Amino acid sequence: MPHLLHIDSSLAPEGSVSRGVAEAYAESWRKHHPDGTLTHRDLATSPPPHLNWALVSGGQTPPEQRTPEQAEAVKIREEYLEEVESADEYVISVPMYNYAYPSTIKAWLDQVIVMGRTAGGTAGDGVLAGRKVTVITAQGGSYAPGAPKEGWDHQVPYLRHAFEALGADNIEFITVVMTLSKVNPALAAFTDVFEASRTAAEQTARDRAAA
Amino acid sequence: MPHLLHIDSSLAPEGSVSRGVAEAYAESWRKHHPDGTLTHRDLATSPPPHLNWALVSGGQTPPEQRTPEQAEAVKIREEYLEEVESADEYVISVPMYNYAYPSTIKAWLDQVIVMGRTAGGTAGDGVLAGRKVTVITAQGGSYAPGAPKEGWDHQVPYLRHAFEALGADNIEFITVVMTLSKVNPALAAFTDVFEASRTAAEQTARDRAAA
Repeated sequence: MPHLLHIDSSLAPEGSVSRGVAEAYAESWRKHHPDGTLTHRDLATSPPPHLNWALVSGGQTPPEQRTPEQAEAVKIREEYLEEVESADEYVISVPMYNYAYPSTIKAWLDQVIVMGRTAGGTAGDGVLAGRKVTVITAQGGSYAPGAPKEGWDHQVPYLRHAFEALGADNIEFITVVMTLSKVNPALAAFTDVFEASRTAAEQTARDRAAA
Repeated sequence: MPHLLHIDSSLAPEGSVSRGVAEAYAESWRKHHPDGTLTHRDLATSPPPHLNWALVSGGQTPPEQRTPEQAEAVKIREEYLEEVESADEYVISVPMYNYAYPSTIKAWLDQVIVMGRTAGGTAGDGVLAGRKVTVITAQGGSYAPGAPKEGWDHQVPYLRHAFEALGADNIEFITVVMTLSKVNPALAAFTDVFEASRTAAEQTARDRAAA
């Protein structure tokens, strides 16, 4: 039975562009997989704990010798790991804050990237090998060649490698640009670019979920 | 009176390479600034909260209209902001986890990057303009040209831009490579590279702190 893990991370409870595109994906997926299971995780309202020493040291300690703090940290990680392992398709929406992904996305990746279990370190070797992964990203401006901040996209390049480290070999990034064009006067000229980008992203998401 | 803000983020309470080099900096700084103030913040043992909606919405709400949750989130951010604003020199140590900086570093940056207050978006425009900033990074392997994971360093390139966004125009990165050579058999041949890299980093740190 198909099982989609749908992860959101935008802070905005309403009006989030990245959440909107991921929802378009999820809606289309539900329609095409009426018997499927959909698990939704919201990293903004339920942020994963930062990696800590209790978890790292606990992971190297036999279960019966762990302190209560170590046992709790390992138990929490186990929930994240099993959630990833039990799905077979993924849609993850990621806004850009300060030129990169939210800290909750890194905390989640640090929980689920476990070399030798979920991660092999390269595409094709890891829990995501052979599984469909779609990453929806939203960017307030544009980081394309020629833009003033060309080279400042520290969101997509990292996520590509992090998911590859988890084995992903069927991954697509769908990016909406200029999301701040409606609120930042300096970007007002790019409102049409934003709208076209969002419309295209939603269609791409719906099509990929149906495929 | 000189005031150094010293930030560590490695999880390891003992044996951390990045902490060790930052400590070499701090020791040298104390020796050369006997009248100086040193503030130490440990992001591993006291992790900053992830950015959340209470903080973002609270920041856009007049103080007297904030909910208790918003007021608390804004108060916490204010402490981080004032800590950065009241120092005039910085040493920040950053390990690499899963090809990037720890989530606590991103959470801290998301707390302190406030456009129009601490951040202008470019070098020379922001709280760090004209102030000496030193970033100590440790990397388990090597991401240099020709290495198998060339291009997978998602730590230094982002930190350079994030600190530039805070105005940094006198910033030096000191990087120790191959820190895992003593524990990862695949990297055992690089133990000498690691040791030389660490020794050089400590000397560079001491010299820069004394300058």
